[in-house]
Amino acid sequence: MKVLIVYTHPNHQSLNYAFLERVLKGSEENPVIEDIKLLDLYEEGFNPVLEFNEQKRRRDMHTDPTFEKYREQLKWADKIIFVYPIWWGRPPAMLLGYFDQVLASNFAYRDKGKWFSEGLLKEKSVVCISTMKGPTHYPLFLLNNSHKALMKKAVFQFIGIKNIKFFEFGDMEKQKGSQEKKLHKIYHYFRKVSK
Amino acid sequence: MKVLIVYTHPNHQSLNYAFLERVLKGSEENPVIEDIKLLDLYEEGFNPVLEFNEQKRRRDMHTDPTFEKYREQLKWADKIIFVYPIWWGRPPAMLLGYFDQVLASNFAYRDKGKWFSEGLLKEKSVVCISTMKGPTHYPLFLLNNSHKALMKKAVFQFIGIKNIKFFEFGDMEKQKGSQEKKLHKIYHYFRKVSK
Repeated sequence: MKVLIVYTHPNHQSLNYAFLERVLKGSEENPVIEDIKLLDLYEEGFNPVLEFNEQKRRRDMHTDPTFEKYREQLKWADKIIFVYPIWWGRPPAMLLGYFDQVLASNFAYRDKGKWFSEGLLKEKSVVCISTMKGPTHYPLFLLNNSHKALMKKAVFQFIGIKNIKFFEFGDMEKQKGSQEKKLHKIYHYFRKVSK
Repeated sequence: MKVLIVYTHPNHQSLNYAFLERVLKGSEENPVIEDIKLLDLYEEGFNPVLEFNEQKRRRDMHTDPTFEKYREQLKWADKIIFVYPIWWGRPPAMLLGYFDQVLASNFAYRDKGKWFSEGLLKEKSVVCISTMKGPTHYPLFLLNNSHKALMKKAVFQFIGIKNIKFFEFGDMEKQKGSQEKKLHKIYHYFRKVSK
């Protein structure tokens, strides 16, 4: 199993980064996982601003050489793991811009007639690990559904991915030590995950 | 009434731009509206990527001089109008990054104890005009709630804005001419709106 980790947080001192470390550690110890690639969108200086116009057509995005590397990573991976914080009820603009730029028509999905489409990234699985810390202690229960609906229905199912797992961790304002149980859960999951 | 329009679309040949033109025309003809500011995030080259770390603290964002201009615009406005397309069930990364960068703690809201917060941009109203065209003909009914919940509950109500109106237009793949009725609706609304 080949694993791609897409990590989206500006600060490597963050609890989010601690989760990334546990994903890596667990995956490295997992005999089923043969290879791991890490895409750190902030480190990469990824440009999340989708531009198109009459010259640079949106329909040609799937061949844009700027983003070929990222399309190849997605094609290569059997499992894609997203690690990110929740800001304003959803992932950071950086991660959503990664979807805007990379999940092009005729790469990630294909229109079928006027009303239907077909996901093209089948047979892959996704894990989303999100932490909720800022902007403040916004009740999780009000926002969970929007976050999951957007990621699951509007993105992953749309591009053909059915196997989707969420780990949503709230109450991230606490000291790092008190988060050890959550971090261990993630480590343990990736050490054992088999599909 | 002072009006700020936040426009988010890369292409001025788009139907989205035609909606912007109608907002402007209607507002200019409305005697209640004394002044109009337009913020075109793409034209502006706005940087939607929020960065913070141990040196550049997130808690100091409300005094970051880079974004003072945008905070001042929001303070100035009585009514804020957002015009944007729906991509992947939500606004473009550019607009969400504008929220990430500009709606800082102690500017747009303030924490009150551990579990509560207070919105600081009270007495303002918001109108969201969104068009649904790409990435494809994704059923509106599946995504409407997420889009509205995110904008209304996770952003506007959180920062203290209660008066929120949505215009959501689907079926944007049709030729421009057939959209005239929708465009006129927007023109008419802004020509008459009084609060």
